[in-house]
Amino acid sequence: MPITLPKAAINLNGEILAPEQAAVNIFDRGFLYGDSLYEVARTYGNTFLHLEAHLDRLEQSARLCHMTLGQSTAEYRTQIYRTLEALRQDYKKEGKPTPEVYCRIIVTRGIGKIGFGLNCLLSPTQYVIIAQPFDPFTFEQVQTGMKLQVSHRLRNDRRALDPAMKSGNYLNNLLAYLESSSDGFDDALLCDSQGFVTEGTTFNIFYVKNNIIVTPPLDVGILDGITRRSVLEVAHHNGFETRECRFPKARLYEADEIFMTSSLREVFPVTQVDHIKPGQGFPGKVTVQLRQLFQKQIREWTHS
Amino acid sequence: MPITLPKAAINLNGEILAPEQAAVNIFDRGFLYGDSLYEVARTYGNTFLHLEAHLDRLEQSARLCHMTLGQSTAEYRTQIYRTLEALRQDYKKEGKPTPEVYCRIIVTRGIGKIGFGLNCLLSPTQYVIIAQPFDPFTFEQVQTGMKLQVSHRLRNDRRALDPAMKSGNYLNNLLAYLESSSDGFDDALLCDSQGFVTEGTTFNIFYVKNNIIVTPPLDVGILDGITRRSVLEVAHHNGFETRECRFPKARLYEADEIFMTSSLREVFPVTQVDHIKPGQGFPGKVTVQLRQLFQKQIREWTHS
Repeated sequence: MPITLPKAAINLNGEILAPEQAAVNIFDRGFLYGDSLYEVARTYGNTFLHLEAHLDRLEQSARLCHMTLGQSTAEYRTQIYRTLEALRQDYKKEGKPTPEVYCRIIVTRGIGKIGFGLNCLLSPTQYVIIAQPFDPFTFEQVQTGMKLQVSHRLRNDRRALDPAMKSGNYLNNLLAYLESSSDGFDDALLCDSQGFVTEGTTFNIFYVKNNIIVTPPLDVGILDGITRRSVLEVAHHNGFETRECRFPKARLYEADEIFMTSSLREVFPVTQVDHIKPGQGFPGKVTVQLRQLFQKQIREWTHS
Repeated sequence: MPITLPKAAINLNGEILAPEQAAVNIFDRGFLYGDSLYEVARTYGNTFLHLEAHLDRLEQSARLCHMTLGQSTAEYRTQIYRTLEALRQDYKKEGKPTPEVYCRIIVTRGIGKIGFGLNCLLSPTQYVIIAQPFDPFTFEQVQTGMKLQVSHRLRNDRRALDPAMKSGNYLNNLLAYLESSSDGFDDALLCDSQGFVTEGTTFNIFYVKNNIIVTPPLDVGILDGITRRSVLEVAHHNGFETRECRFPKARLYEADEIFMTSSLREVFPVTQVDHIKPGQGFPGKVTVQLRQLFQKQIREWTHS
C-alpha cells in the first residue's frame, strides 16, 4: 500500500534524502532497542532557537546513555542547517514561501548484531536529521489551551531510566498520551511513585498561585527543559517570584493558572486538568503576560 | 563504510530479504519511539519450542500497549516458518548442514507522522521476522556459568512501563547490561525500588536453598517467562518444592545455588552474584538436574 509521507528533508549520516528514501537497516539499535537519543528545535526566521543548548543537552543525554555522538556538536550544527537549507530549496523550487521549520535530530548507537554488548556493534553512531515545515500555533489554539489528564501511569523513575535523558524509549509517555486521549483529553501529565507531579509527555508544567510561579524541581526526575529554564529566567527578571518544588496534583486543582512549556509550544495555557478548570477555562493573566515576555525575548535572541 | 551484517533471512511484512536490504523507513514508530513489541524463540530440530506460547504473549504485550497485531497469530506462525525455511534454503544452497535457528519477531505500530496520536499513523502495523543461525551453548559455557551484578539501576516500575510487556523500549535493561559489563560482569540483575530482586536483562532468576526452589512472583513486575513457567512445572512434577516470593539480593548471597532461565539459555547456572560465589563457583546439583529434566522435556515436546 503506497503511503504519503509528510513533506520533509531528511539527512541520513550526511546524505540528504526525500522521506520515502530515508530508511535505516533493521539491525540499527535505534530500531531494535530504542537505543537512540534525540533533540527537537524550531526556527524563528533564519535561526534555530537555542540550538547550542539543544546540542549541549544531546551531549548530556549521551553521557547518561554511555554513548558517543560520533561527531562534534559543531558538525551536527552544520548538518542541521544544511538540512534546513535543503527543505528551503524544495519550497523555493515550488515557488512557495519558506515556512517555519521543525527539526528533529536522532542519534543511534549504530548498527549491530542482536545483543547488548558494545562488541556487537558493526557501525559507529548513525544520525538522522528531519527538517519539516512547522505551523506555529494559532491565536485560537492558544486561547483554547490544553486539557490535561493526570495519568494513572507513573513517570519513569529516574533510578530506572532518567527522564533527563532524551531517548528513543518513548513508550512511557506515549502510552500515557494514548490513555488520556482515549479519555477525551488533549494530553497527559505524569506523577512519580510518591504522587508528586513530574512533567507532561513532551512538556514541562507550571502553575501560578497568588502570583507565585511554581514548577517541579529537576531532581523529581524530569527533562531539564530549555524553555522551562528560559521561562524561569524571564519570569525572575520581570519581578515574578518563582519556586521549584515538589507538589501533588491537588495543588494544580487549587491553582489560579496553569501553563506548560516546550520548544514548540513556548508558554502555552492549560485550561483544564482532570475535571478542574482554573480561570473558568480561559488562559490566565500571568500565563498570557509570560507568553508575551518570552516571545519578546525570542525576537531579541533570534533577531527575527 | 561497508559493514558485514550477520547471516540471516529477514521477513519484512511478508517479503523475504537479505539483511542488507532489510530497512524500515525512519518514520516507523519502532524507530522513532521504540513503539514496537517483540518475541524470541528458537528451534530444536524442525520445531520452534513453545511458539504458540510466544505468540500468545505477543498478543498480551499488544493489549498492554494498546496495539493491534494486524494479523492473526496463525498468520505470524506461517510467516515465521516461511522465514525459517528461507534461511534453511540458503544453507542448503551452500551445501552446509542446517543450524539451529534463533527467531526474533518485531511488530511496530506502523509508519506515522511525528506525534503520539493514532491519527498520526499512515500505515498499519508493520512486522519484521529475523531468522538467524543459533549456536547452542557449549558444555564449557554451561560449566563456567554466568557472573551477574546486581545493578544499581532499578528495573522499570510496572506502573510506569510494565516489564510483562516485551517492547522495543529496551534501554533500562541495556544500560544495566553495559554498566555491569564495564564492571567486569557477564550480565545484570535488577531490583525494584523496595530492594526486591526482579529479573535479569533478558532472563528470569531463581535460587535454591535447602532444596527449595525460589523465584520472584510475577507481580513484582517481571516478564512472565515461558521457560520460567515450564521450569516451575518441571520442578514441581519432579518433587521439588517451589516458591514464588519477593526477596532482597541478600537472599542470593546466602543461596546454595542460583540459576537463570530464558528461551535461549534454558536452565543456566549462575556461578557468581556480585562478589559471592555460591557452590564455590560451580553449577549446583539441583541446577544441573533441572537443566537435564528440562532438556528431556524439550525433546518430548519437540520430538527432536
